[in-house]
Amino acid sequence: MTAPQTGLIGLGTMGAALALNIAEKGFPIAVWNRTGSVTQAFHANAGDLAPRITPTATLAELVQAITPPRAIILMVPAGQAVDDQLAALAPLLGPEDLVIDAGNANFRDTNRRDAAGLPFHFMGIGVSGGEEGARHGPSIMAGGPPAAWARMQPLLQAIAARAEDGTPCADHMGPSGAGHFVKAVHNGIEYADMQMIAETYGVMRDGLGMAAPAIAPVFDAWNKGILQSYLIEISGQVAATADPVTGAPLLDMIVDSAGQKGTGRWTAVEAQHLAAPVPVIEAAVMARNVSARRAERAAGEARFGRATPDLNLSVDDLEQALIAGKILCYAQGFAMMTAAAAEFGWALDMPAIARVWRAGCIIRSAMLNDMAAALAEDPARNLILAPFFAAQLDHSLPALRRVVAAGALQGMGLPALSAGLAWFDLMRQARGTANMIQGQRDFFGLHGFTRLDGLDHPHGPWAQA
Amino acid sequence: MTAPQTGLIGLGTMGAALALNIAEKGFPIAVWNRTGSVTQAFHANAGDLAPRITPTATLAELVQAITPPRAIILMVPAGQAVDDQLAALAPLLGPEDLVIDAGNANFRDTNRRDAAGLPFHFMGIGVSGGEEGARHGPSIMAGGPPAAWARMQPLLQAIAARAEDGTPCADHMGPSGAGHFVKAVHNGIEYADMQMIAETYGVMRDGLGMAAPAIAPVFDAWNKGILQSYLIEISGQVAATADPVTGAPLLDMIVDSAGQKGTGRWTAVEAQHLAAPVPVIEAAVMARNVSARRAERAAGEARFGRATPDLNLSVDDLEQALIAGKILCYAQGFAMMTAAAAEFGWALDMPAIARVWRAGCIIRSAMLNDMAAALAEDPARNLILAPFFAAQLDHSLPALRRVVAAGALQGMGLPALSAGLAWFDLMRQARGTANMIQGQRDFFGLHGFTRLDGLDHPHGPWAQA
Repeated sequence: MTAPQTGLIGLGTMGAALALNIAEKGFPIAVWNRTGSVTQAFHANAGDLAPRITPTATLAELVQAITPPRAIILMVPAGQAVDDQLAALAPLLGPEDLVIDAGNANFRDTNRRDAAGLPFHFMGIGVSGGEEGARHGPSIMAGGPPAAWARMQPLLQAIAARAEDGTPCADHMGPSGAGHFVKAVHNGIEYADMQMIAETYGVMRDGLGMAAPAIAPVFDAWNKGILQSYLIEISGQVAATADPVTGAPLLDMIVDSAGQKGTGRWTAVEAQHLAAPVPVIEAAVMARNVSARRAERAAGEARFGRATPDLNLSVDDLEQALIAGKILCYAQGFAMMTAAAAEFGWALDMPAIARVWRAGCIIRSAMLNDMAAALAEDPARNLILAPFFAAQLDHSLPALRRVVAAGALQGMGLPALSAGLAWFDLMRQARGTANMIQGQRDFFGLHGFTRLDGLDHPHGPWAQA
Repeated sequence: MTAPQTGLIGLGTMGAALALNIAEKGFPIAVWNRTGSVTQAFHANAGDLAPRITPTATLAELVQAITPPRAIILMVPAGQAVDDQLAALAPLLGPEDLVIDAGNANFRDTNRRDAAGLPFHFMGIGVSGGEEGARHGPSIMAGGPPAAWARMQPLLQAIAARAEDGTPCADHMGPSGAGHFVKAVHNGIEYADMQMIAETYGVMRDGLGMAAPAIAPVFDAWNKGILQSYLIEISGQVAATADPVTGAPLLDMIVDSAGQKGTGRWTAVEAQHLAAPVPVIEAAVMARNVSARRAERAAGEARFGRATPDLNLSVDDLEQALIAGKILCYAQGFAMMTAAAAEFGWALDMPAIARVWRAGCIIRSAMLNDMAAALAEDPARNLILAPFFAAQLDHSLPALRRVVAAGALQGMGLPALSAGLAWFDLMRQARGTANMIQGQRDFFGLHGFTRLDGLDHPHGPWAQA
């Protein structure tokens, strides 16, 4: 067997899956886990792949087992564990070795580690797709020096998911933190996609009186159209599933409080720092937070009554509303990345980002093909202005308007869909209403304003008082 | 003249105004500014108040001029300047002296400074109301040890604004950072109030075809009702104002791009960390960010056309919508403070917070009297469930629904009003739609869910695969 040039530290669920994937694609790999028994068990259960895997008992042994220049992938918990591991590796590695943090780091930590001047090359890569993706083909968003990417590209593209056209869903996003940043935006969009689906589910359940088994085929049908995507597909499967215990629809047995690992929240926080509007993502995080307040919601219903909507809507309206909402949400997400590129001096390749999301990750969808094409035309232009998506919006917005208006009138909360629509209507309003805000700010704080006629007269008459 | 027990560092706009206010209320005060000429000019222009003011030329001279135990108010720019000043004071002060940061500190910095163990007592106080407030009566939100508050209470309550019932708008919010935290929530609510007013202005201008001079008396009328508040009052004055240059309505000359000092953004970020939903504040920040993108908005209008709403709405509908929106926004703000109290172990006095906001600050309003009363009944209960406000919502929500629905149908973006409404409808939905999200999360990541029937069977059948 060829001696491995690659190592992997951390054989938890994701690390183990990634190591097997790497071995399966023909790359010998040395592995090490802090708890030695985990390493042994992993190797013992690797089956046909075991010969390509070199288990090691100490960090020094791991380093020794890898032929220089080494590439060592970290799959340890984000945060202090990464810093500890980098410190432990420092005395063992040479300047041509490369360490790759493939965990869920905050991109600011990745930038900080890079800026600290590590005694080896360093990359941060976002790996999306959960255990299944890690094992059989994740979406990979890589950040780091171009030379490091060039070195890892064959391996990362070999283990990555492939889009329908055969392109591997692994690409170089930019320097150090750029990979983890793009992964974070992915996660925020994931929250938003899920929330908008939940809202259309709610309209079907509460507004159209449909039971879960009747809702499932609607998602299945949508999955054959422009909404074709993993999340729509599994929504149909979830809706179709019977509870193994009671036989009732499983959806009707699940408590309506959504958990979160905080990744959507983190996207919303970064968007605030960038002054980039992502209201659909914010609404999705808000809805999860409200979902956790079950007792308060029950008290609210007791006081204000249950909404009894009688919606003059069809499932086709909902499909169109979801198409529009999805376009608006992604337009916000890509605009946030444009803002980040400007802020951090990154040359983020927007079409490449759309392409790596086409397979392997949770938000994979057919529409990302069209987004990649639209972004290739003009990556700086907001997606709503790309001819293809503008035409889609022409077609789908009337339904989104009907759905949001019906929800507002009849008491069905549709926070993500309505936030997307309100943002769109601000974005196509050449003359907005912030002149009133500027007037107020000048009145109470002499903050000044600019004038439409360009004259240098930045205050109201109250400034003389 | 009695020797001063109080000193003030930093004679910028706010510091100078505060020093004059303190002197005017009968408290001798020693002042120092890094640029000595500023100190001299300040004293020279202090008129009748000059005899109560002791100008000093060095920091040591300032300290010497104050009778121990000293109280020294910092009015220097937030951030490093505060740390520098604290370090400079450390060797000069004794353990019974007290330093009060009255600037716009981030509450996390105030907590950090307190936790670092300064060699004197330390308070952080939020001072709201701008220069005018600082000079003639601000709203003061104090954080720090109870003994320090007890020492400063006479002075702070003497210089503070007074509510209509005569109560001074200065109170003790809790330990160290609590004062600056409450001030931050105030600022977020200020953004939201301003945005909702701008939205009703936009409906009048674009949806009802009203010119600014016709809009002014509407605000004036609202200011005589339940919406009576400083911001409504000045909105009427701004709308009524003619441009001194052209004679046209001033509002029609002001560019529709709102500036921000970032305080609303900061509130949104902290709310994310607390998992506290503040969607109206988020929408207000979002709208300011979109307002800055003028060229993009013009391109949006060029592609999608200007909204030409024909709204079947009255100004009375708008008044009711604004009443509802305001209640919903403040309910979110107080719930955020409840979350902060739990997170940081603060005993925030919610009715006291409503009371100190009743005068002196930008969001002062009549409705805060009713909020103080409702919060006194049960400070942990969400404000929408307080009988007084629930009844107000019964009355005003139908109009908010009509306004939001009309905007959605006809292309008028009303992000803050619609975000408030969507939140409300989630908060009165005992059975939400997050069961779909939990089903999806379990399907793709085996995150598990809880069951309505309490059985310990946290996965769908896919978990066996």
